[in-house]
This record gives sequence, C-alpha cells and structure tokens, in this order.
Amino acid sequence: MRVLHLIGIGAGDRDQVTVQAVKAMNTVDVFFVIDKGNPKQGLVDVRTEILAEHVTREHRVVEIEDPPRDRTPADYGNAVDDWHARRAARISDAIAAEPEDAVGAILVWGDPSLYDSTIRVIERILALGRVGFDYDVIPGVTSVSALAAQHRIVLNRVGEAVHVTTGRNLRDHGLPEGVDAAVVMLDSDCSFTALPEWDIWWGANLGTADAREVAGRVADVVDEIERVRAEVKSRAGWVMDTYLVRRSRLS
Amino acid sequence: MRVLHLIGIGAGDRDQVTVQAVKAMNTVDVFFVIDKGNPKQGLVDVRTEILAEHVTREHRVVEIEDPPRDRTPADYGNAVDDWHARRAARISDAIAAEPEDAVGAILVWGDPSLYDSTIRVIERILALGRVGFDYDVIPGVTSVSALAAQHRIVLNRVGEAVHVTTGRNLRDHGLPEGVDAAVVMLDSDCSFTALPEWDIWWGANLGTADAREVAGRVADVVDEIERVRAEVKSRAGWVMDTYLVRRSRLS
Repeated sequence: MRVLHLIGIGAGDRDQVTVQAVKAMNTVDVFFVIDKGNPKQGLVDVRTEILAEHVTREHRVVEIEDPPRDRTPADYGNAVDDWHARRAARISDAIAAEPEDAVGAILVWGDPSLYDSTIRVIERILALGRVGFDYDVIPGVTSVSALAAQHRIVLNRVGEAVHVTTGRNLRDHGLPEGVDAAVVMLDSDCSFTALPEWDIWWGANLGTADAREVAGRVADVVDEIERVRAEVKSRAGWVMDTYLVRRSRLS
Repeated sequence: MRVLHLIGIGAGDRDQVTVQAVKAMNTVDVFFVIDKGNPKQGLVDVRTEILAEHVTREHRVVEIEDPPRDRTPADYGNAVDDWHARRAARISDAIAAEPEDAVGAILVWGDPSLYDSTIRVIERILALGRVGFDYDVIPGVTSVSALAAQHRIVLNRVGEAVHVTTGRNLRDHGLPEGVDAAVVMLDSDCSFTALPEWDIWWGANLGTADAREVAGRVADVVDEIERVRAEVKSRAGWVMDTYLVRRSRLS
C-alpha cells in the first residue's frame, strides 16, 4: 500500500466530518473497518452512512474483526499492549493483501489524538516491517467538543486549566490536587458520584440519533444520569459517555 | 435576529471546516467578524477565504472592531471581564441593527469550547436584554487536534490523563503534582523552558501556509523553537502556538 490516511470522522453525526476528510476519503481505494462486534454495530453503521453520504469514488470496504479484549485485566497496561499487538497483526495482514499502489484509510471515531489506539497500532505495524507505507492523520471533531457544543459551554473557566482523563483514573486515583475542572471519557462506572458537590455537564452517544444530555449539580442529577444512561444503552445497544465536571464556585 | 450560529471553523486550513458548518453557513444572512486589528489580519483573511470557498448563498459580512485590551493587567480576571463587557456591547449593537428574522453567525477559530470567549460574550449579550435571539454551537476541530495530527501523535499515553492549560498558568504556577502531560495554549513566553527534561511537540500557525512544527527534548529544541517562532511571526505578522509537553519516560 502506498499511503494510509487515518481520518477523524467526528463524534457520530455524519455531517461532523470536515471537508478535508471528505476530500481525502474520495482518493481512497480501500477502507479498513475495525469491527467491534455486534454490541457496537451502531458505530460501524455511522461509518457506512458517512461513506454513502460523502464518497462518490468507487471503493472497497474491508472489515477486520477486532481481537477479543480482557476488559477487567489485573495489569491494564500489559493487557492493552497485548491487545494492540494482536490488532496490529490482523491489520498488517489486511494491508499486505492490498496492491502496492493502493490508497487506504481507517475512519476513526472522534479524533485520532484522544483516547484512540489507531496511531499506536499503525506505528506498531510499521515496526513489524512486514508491510511498508506512508501515513498521515486528518484531525476530527472530538466527542469533547461535541459535548461542549451540545451544552453550549466553554470547557475552561477564564484563564483556567481543564484536565482530560478517564473514568478509570477518576475512580482509582481521583483528580490531581489543584484540578478544578475535568473532562472524563470512557467512564462505565459513573465515577463522578465521588464528586457530589461539583457541577456536571454529561452527554451520551453524542452526535447520534440517540444522543442525550444532562447537566446540574452531581448530587442532584446522578439518578437522572444513571436512568438516561440505561435508556440510551437499551435503545442503541451501546453507550459511550463523556462529561465535564467542575468544582462549583459555591461549594 | 432570529438565530445566531457560533461556528467552529478549525485551526486555519479552510478545508478543516465540517460539512455541518458548511451547511449552517449556507443558511446565514449576516456574518459578524470580530476584527482584531492589523497584526492578526491573517485570521480575518482565512475567514474570508472560508466564506468564498464554501458559501454560495448571498450574505453580508459585518466587521466589528475589537475593543482595545490590556495585555498585562494587574488583575487578569477583572481585565478580561471588562474587555468581554465592552465586546458584548459592540456586538449587541451590531445585532440590534439586523432585521428580526435574520440568521446570523460568528465564525470561531478552532472550536468555541476551548479558550474562546464567544459563548461567554453571547451569554452576556442575552443577559443585557437589549436584543433577544436563540443561538447554537457547531463544534470544530481544535488547534490541539491539528497539532496532534501534524505530529501524528496521541495526546495521552495509554490510559493516562492529559492536562490542558495556558502558558500563563504554566509560567506562574507550574503543573499540578502528578500531571505528566500537558497541552499548553496561548504561551507567548515559551514557558516550556521550565521543563528542560520533558519532551515537546510544538506547532505554530497550524493549518495555515506558515505552519511549522518542532519536536524533541525541550533542552535540545528550545533554541530551534524560539528561532522558528520568530520566523513565523516575521513572515505571517502574528504567531499562535500550541504544544504538548510530556515527562520523558527516561528522565
């Protein structure tokens, strides 16, 4: 393969792709779609919709089944590393099967720079050395920006910082001393309940037809969020949530 | 005015706008352009290019001169507050001059949710009560995502957090204890020099024709960054830089 584009496609709305992404997609011979299996079929469908809506050039779609992943490992870092290795081997095989002058692409949910493993997996494939190609990254709208837009908020207070972290980090370590605002991703445990006096701006499945938002003081809205979260999951078959929590000026 | 769209237009490349943004722009009667004066004329030009490239509907552009701003105030919070108040008054006047059924828009560099005052100014205009309208936010690609794409990096290490802050905070307060990775915006003082052993991925005027990037260990690349920064400023007439700094695993 000659070149591989890693293309951020935004948070789910098929019109949240950039013009740059649309132009790149229209140079592509083969799209590799990493199939996460039935529960997240909705994600694959959005990618299919994006291709149908924006790509006029003839192209192929190669589905690559994602290797199974231990979601509750004893050693998180090692488990992820092992999963990336198996994922890299599968994608490397798929790339090797393509013509040498082909242009490939992987569509990445949100933006490839934030809590996404695609760049790491591609670097690993190149390090394996079984296939050689150039690659570039086309940035996309993150689910963080989609969350903020939906709530019409600025993530940072004037001149202040905002921390970006995972639900796992919040649950296991809390926030660093001095951090008064945090965007939390990948939180399946509703770890914000540990911050009852803070304010929260929460969103799930942003950009999709099942998108929902809740905002308020954590203690006041925690029940509503858990209820809405369950509703979204039941309707869409999957739920991905992102939220901003901020220490209240009044607390 | 009936509705005002706050539209994120990405980091500078005119194709970094989303399809959603392009569709919204093609419903707009009047674009309000906040003119920051000659030094940043380049920013206004990119907006003009974006309109020329993507908007086919007839529209007007109303330029609003930005009020002067004290860049080295004794009290930063109060100075910003005062500046926002004067900005709000000017934009409120411009909106009041529009027909009641008009659709307006403000194009926002990057994304309106990150270190941008537009949402706050609009909330202030509505609070003034001299004009009434509905508004929404259309998210864009941040300069942070553009930086990461240019360097082909993931901002966070696997499962780890990333802090987003300003050059002023880094200079005056350092980073919170336990923070090993930070994206820094609006740093005109090259405050990263305080972290000589960390790694840096730096970029200036990302997305524009004058964009430049430098990466390496801070101590090794600080001279190069200062030289490139001066070059960009001299060529473009302005410089806006964004960078990721991360504690090296080796230090």
